[in-house]
Amino acid sequence: MQPFEIHILGCGSALPTPRHLPSAQVVNLRDKLLLIDCGEGTQIAWRHTGLNWQRISHIFLSHAHGDHVFGLPGLISTMGLMGRTSPLYIHGPANLRNYIEFTIAHFCPDMDYEVQFCPVDTTKHALIFEDRSMEVWSLPLRHRVPCSGYLIKEKPGLPHIRREMIDFYEIPTWAINKIKAGEDWQTPEGDIIPNSRLITPPDPVRSYAYCSDTMSVPELAEWCHDVTLMYHEATYATSEISHADKYGHSTAAQAAACAKSANAQRLMLGHFSARYEDENLLLNEAKAIFENTILAQERLRIAL
Amino acid sequence: MQPFEIHILGCGSALPTPRHLPSAQVVNLRDKLLLIDCGEGTQIAWRHTGLNWQRISHIFLSHAHGDHVFGLPGLISTMGLMGRTSPLYIHGPANLRNYIEFTIAHFCPDMDYEVQFCPVDTTKHALIFEDRSMEVWSLPLRHRVPCSGYLIKEKPGLPHIRREMIDFYEIPTWAINKIKAGEDWQTPEGDIIPNSRLITPPDPVRSYAYCSDTMSVPELAEWCHDVTLMYHEATYATSEISHADKYGHSTAAQAAACAKSANAQRLMLGHFSARYEDENLLLNEAKAIFENTILAQERLRIAL
Repeated sequence: MQPFEIHILGCGSALPTPRHLPSAQVVNLRDKLLLIDCGEGTQIAWRHTGLNWQRISHIFLSHAHGDHVFGLPGLISTMGLMGRTSPLYIHGPANLRNYIEFTIAHFCPDMDYEVQFCPVDTTKHALIFEDRSMEVWSLPLRHRVPCSGYLIKEKPGLPHIRREMIDFYEIPTWAINKIKAGEDWQTPEGDIIPNSRLITPPDPVRSYAYCSDTMSVPELAEWCHDVTLMYHEATYATSEISHADKYGHSTAAQAAACAKSANAQRLMLGHFSARYEDENLLLNEAKAIFENTILAQERLRIAL
Repeated sequence: MQPFEIHILGCGSALPTPRHLPSAQVVNLRDKLLLIDCGEGTQIAWRHTGLNWQRISHIFLSHAHGDHVFGLPGLISTMGLMGRTSPLYIHGPANLRNYIEFTIAHFCPDMDYEVQFCPVDTTKHALIFEDRSMEVWSLPLRHRVPCSGYLIKEKPGLPHIRREMIDFYEIPTWAINKIKAGEDWQTPEGDIIPNSRLITPPDPVRSYAYCSDTMSVPELAEWCHDVTLMYHEATYATSEISHADKYGHSTAAQAAACAKSANAQRLMLGHFSARYEDENLLLNEAKAIFENTILAQERLRIAL
């Protein structure tokens, strides 16, 4: 299978701790790299991924809070210093445009590449980017400021050829792509071999939902239905639910309820409050509702 | 002696490397903390100092390049989140005002403390801050943008009382501060004991000069005369002197020549280009001119 991996660079919340960096993660989908959020230290944490950051062409930012974007100026500058020439597309709520334009104008006006800001309507669940291999959808979230999550879905691949049938019917190479595209095969004797005998189904479509920062959003159940992996913020334990409500965050139990209602295959908790020395408290509260839950951690790499 | 310590948080140049963070250092002078420059990751690197960052009341920024200031937004925000109420004074070239004001307006408009920007005239060697225990002087540097170094000098302390004389003449406690201030002592019998017999001289005055980023500045020899420790950027080796000239930086040999002409007691090299895997090349080039030279390194603490 083609790679579809999530690399966690940071999964803490706003207050720095010795245990966590602020939010940032990389999605490697068929060797295309997407950066989601860009907290301070992203370019420093990046090195542990072993990935070439010049291969990022799209960055998706959830919202204009420092712990999600303060690594962006350093990343933009360094990409310029390293000789980048290909354009960089940054998607995020419209109120981030000023920040990006200010940064470039003041700190890196003479770069050899273009940064293009693509505003995301944080009130709509919409397709905001696609290419041959993926779609990225916005996920309207509920936070103190305009905020969007992102759903990354790979596009269905082609079916697989059944090698033994190709050999048996001596099907030539030029016909393979037509069969993958759905055609039957006619033998030299005029027999029609139906397409369904020549192929096996494509790999199942995988998807990843990034939901941070947010209070409970019931619509995520529908938007992210059957998602392969959901990253949902779990800033607080249930005992701190009043903080979650006050600051526009979720408890671990709320994150788990969301994953359950979306019929997610797996849930990853993140954006942990600095108050928890041991986040197993959060994990256990989530697992009581949705068993297949894990904790995010810096340097964690998950393959879907 | 009262503490006068330098903590190196970062001493790399603009390109991030696995070995170095961008420029930032803390000066602890008699338990007052000054932050000099604030590259990305400063609030993360800070934790290794064991110092309480809420005790910083003055930050001195050299110039408006990202590798010297991109850690500032995170630091300002976090100080606010941690409940700071005392004002924070940020000194630096005038073109940093917009950056600081933009950051606060966009990311932390509701903080409970005031950030006051104090512009530094980068063309004048002038006293820009003083309190009971120190003076901070600007050091006009030569870089691609307006840039200032900083000279931090402790003020002379009081002389030390000679304990054995106090005991011998049975001098009461209430007279001690008068003697420290220069008065003689009159015995009950009317004899005058001259002040010079009662005291030993105060500790020698210590000073620290931060000179980064800059080409050679001949006036530093006079401004920093007899400085206890000079931190001077040494971005390049002599073989790269054309780069140094082009980008407004110094070679290690130029840094050493500056320390020598200033009659510095010690020189610390920093702001290393990412191209040097082994900075002993820089160290050796400097030592050939000024023997008492060391390399800066993250987590290094130097007591003056």
